[in-house]
Amino acid sequence: MQKRLIVQKFGGSSVANVERIQNVAKRVVKYRKNGHDLVVVVSALGDTTDELIDLASKINSDASEREMDMLLSTGEQISVALLAMAIHKLGYEAISFTGAQVGIITDKNHTRAKIVKINGDRIKEALKKGKIVIVAGFQGMTLDQDITTLGRGGSDLTAVALAKELAADECEIYTDVEGIFTTDPRIEPKARKIDAITYDEMLEMASLGAQVMQARSIEVAKKFNVPIQCRSSFSDKPGTMIIKEVKHMEDVVLSAVTLNRNEAKITICTVPDKPGVAAKIFKELAEAEVNVDMIVQNVSHLRQTDISFTVAKSGALKAIKLTKKVAKAIGAGEVLEDEDIARVSVVGVGMKSHPGVAATMFDTMAKNKINIEMISTSDISISCIIKNQLAEKAVKALHHEFGLDKR
Amino acid sequence: MQKRLIVQKFGGSSVANVERIQNVAKRVVKYRKNGHDLVVVVSALGDTTDELIDLASKINSDASEREMDMLLSTGEQISVALLAMAIHKLGYEAISFTGAQVGIITDKNHTRAKIVKINGDRIKEALKKGKIVIVAGFQGMTLDQDITTLGRGGSDLTAVALAKELAADECEIYTDVEGIFTTDPRIEPKARKIDAITYDEMLEMASLGAQVMQARSIEVAKKFNVPIQCRSSFSDKPGTMIIKEVKHMEDVVLSAVTLNRNEAKITICTVPDKPGVAAKIFKELAEAEVNVDMIVQNVSHLRQTDISFTVAKSGALKAIKLTKKVAKAIGAGEVLEDEDIARVSVVGVGMKSHPGVAATMFDTMAKNKINIEMISTSDISISCIIKNQLAEKAVKALHHEFGLDKR
Repeated sequence: MQKRLIVQKFGGSSVANVERIQNVAKRVVKYRKNGHDLVVVVSALGDTTDELIDLASKINSDASEREMDMLLSTGEQISVALLAMAIHKLGYEAISFTGAQVGIITDKNHTRAKIVKINGDRIKEALKKGKIVIVAGFQGMTLDQDITTLGRGGSDLTAVALAKELAADECEIYTDVEGIFTTDPRIEPKARKIDAITYDEMLEMASLGAQVMQARSIEVAKKFNVPIQCRSSFSDKPGTMIIKEVKHMEDVVLSAVTLNRNEAKITICTVPDKPGVAAKIFKELAEAEVNVDMIVQNVSHLRQTDISFTVAKSGALKAIKLTKKVAKAIGAGEVLEDEDIARVSVVGVGMKSHPGVAATMFDTMAKNKINIEMISTSDISISCIIKNQLAEKAVKALHHEFGLDKR
Repeated sequence: MQKRLIVQKFGGSSVANVERIQNVAKRVVKYRKNGHDLVVVVSALGDTTDELIDLASKINSDASEREMDMLLSTGEQISVALLAMAIHKLGYEAISFTGAQVGIITDKNHTRAKIVKINGDRIKEALKKGKIVIVAGFQGMTLDQDITTLGRGGSDLTAVALAKELAADECEIYTDVEGIFTTDPRIEPKARKIDAITYDEMLEMASLGAQVMQARSIEVAKKFNVPIQCRSSFSDKPGTMIIKEVKHMEDVVLSAVTLNRNEAKITICTVPDKPGVAAKIFKELAEAEVNVDMIVQNVSHLRQTDISFTVAKSGALKAIKLTKKVAKAIGAGEVLEDEDIARVSVVGVGMKSHPGVAATMFDTMAKNKINIEMISTSDISISCIIKNQLAEKAVKALHHEFGLDKR
């Protein structure tokens, strides 16, 4: 077997207790026995991060972000030390590093810092000495030596960025699922694991609510063409490759059906149809940091129109309040809210060259008596907002209709 | 009130939970309100360090010392972040640092590193900006940027070393006791808190088993003449000053009576009285890293003698085994062991100028029918090994006889 440099990332559930840490150590050592060079990125043990956040909130509910980073970065530091010890126990050489120690330099945006550059020298040196290198995920440091964290999905980002910096042959992201599925197997038992998927499809799926990897890490992987494999730390089966192009599957129209139940729909009725009105609404929401997702404006009739949009349920209260204020200011009518909705989407680069996907999707909905409340399309996805209680029925119907259960 | 620079160190019990962290924050802020500059050194929360050690031992009972330091240093990092948040909550500016961040450079002896130098620039800069500076105790880093810990009493050492480096006006060591006492108040309720004591006396007391401060930190304080105050974080009463000379107390003969129950006595009988025999015994023990404390050799008669010595109970088994081996090799007789002993000592620089302390001590023992098994003296202390069950009686009698209960 050819010697390769592999970056492996293990999430919090993969290192949640002593036994699981030992399992990760065994897996890492198995690769090492095959002669590969390994850089292992680890998240904090199980619920450690949540426990630390809880402790901080008891002391100061509005804690300084710099101090939060100081606090939270300890979680990953504990993990790397323990994993190194577990690997030593198996008789292999390993060395652990914090983000700061391996020169992961970030900007100063504490709790959501961006990686500015990585100095991989220390890792390369340790690899050259034959050591398995273990790096704390989710963290870096500023040029002033302040500890930073990278925000949600930060450990994935650490892994992808290191894979790029070290020109690794592959970047493996280990989680508690076996890969990316054609849809959520808890909803559709016929869902299949996808062998390979493009960065663009994965990005689309992440933005549509798939929780396997954060969009940020995939964007970086895409930018630098880092091949990723998403797989399970509890199984030896191959996972899903996330790559630039999936060549051998030109006849595959769709890759997956996704479902997102975390959005609420807001509608402003009888909005005066004049220039600048939409801008006014969404500028106000943006300034309040409410993330607006789908926006649909119907054709105007009688010089007025309805505007609907979706926001994350967590931001719905704030959004409603603001929207009512703006509606009044612009002379619009009632503001309606509906939290009992779901977004069902189909995703696939294939739809670029296969016309008729939208028609098939809408037809499937109709045949199943599912009313579509909003429609939104992108280059490689089509989304429908429907009533929440019909969501599972829609997912199953689409999964079947587009042949995702067959191979 | 004159503006002063004060280094304060809070031990693990002072920051064991949210409420205690808040109390420490209040105390720090009170000093700040009086206009003082503050550098606060903190240990890990309560039992955090022990819990981490326990976790590590489950993974690897012979864990790498470098990785242990990586692991254990997180304890203090959590404390400094939480204390900074608690001070912010009170409306004051504070900033936390790890040992590495404030340039505490150590040698490479992981788990027991020595401080090589401190670059105080970052602390001085933060103080100049009006911030309360919070530093993780017990830790530093090597020139290669590896994280190290300073071993037992390491946080005290951090505080004393920072006080020296910053030329602080005072170094306050907060614990859960109100200061240094004339003897253990749990044994003798008449024990009094000592107002001031010299470095030498404190060193002697530490080596005789007093657990308030480790000898290492006191040695550094003595070397650089850093005035220390030992006091309680649960009280506002002044504690005990540890300083170079206690001038106003020339008539005080003794400062304290100490008791150490953690030693075992080993006796080698009928040792041939010829040159090199003692050397052979203790060289062997030293090489096995058994710490020998008191050594007593009786006058020789019939060209043979008995040699007795004490070792820490934790090392007694190993010591006995080795001693038996050596005894055989040198043609000595039986090896006896006694764990049921105690060392009672009197300490005081005053004994240098007040002859007769030893006589009074032995007389007190005799009056109380306490048999003395071994005697050892230093410049400023006299120790007797007696039966363990008579220890408390001896402590009380000496405390009374030397007038330590009066003032």
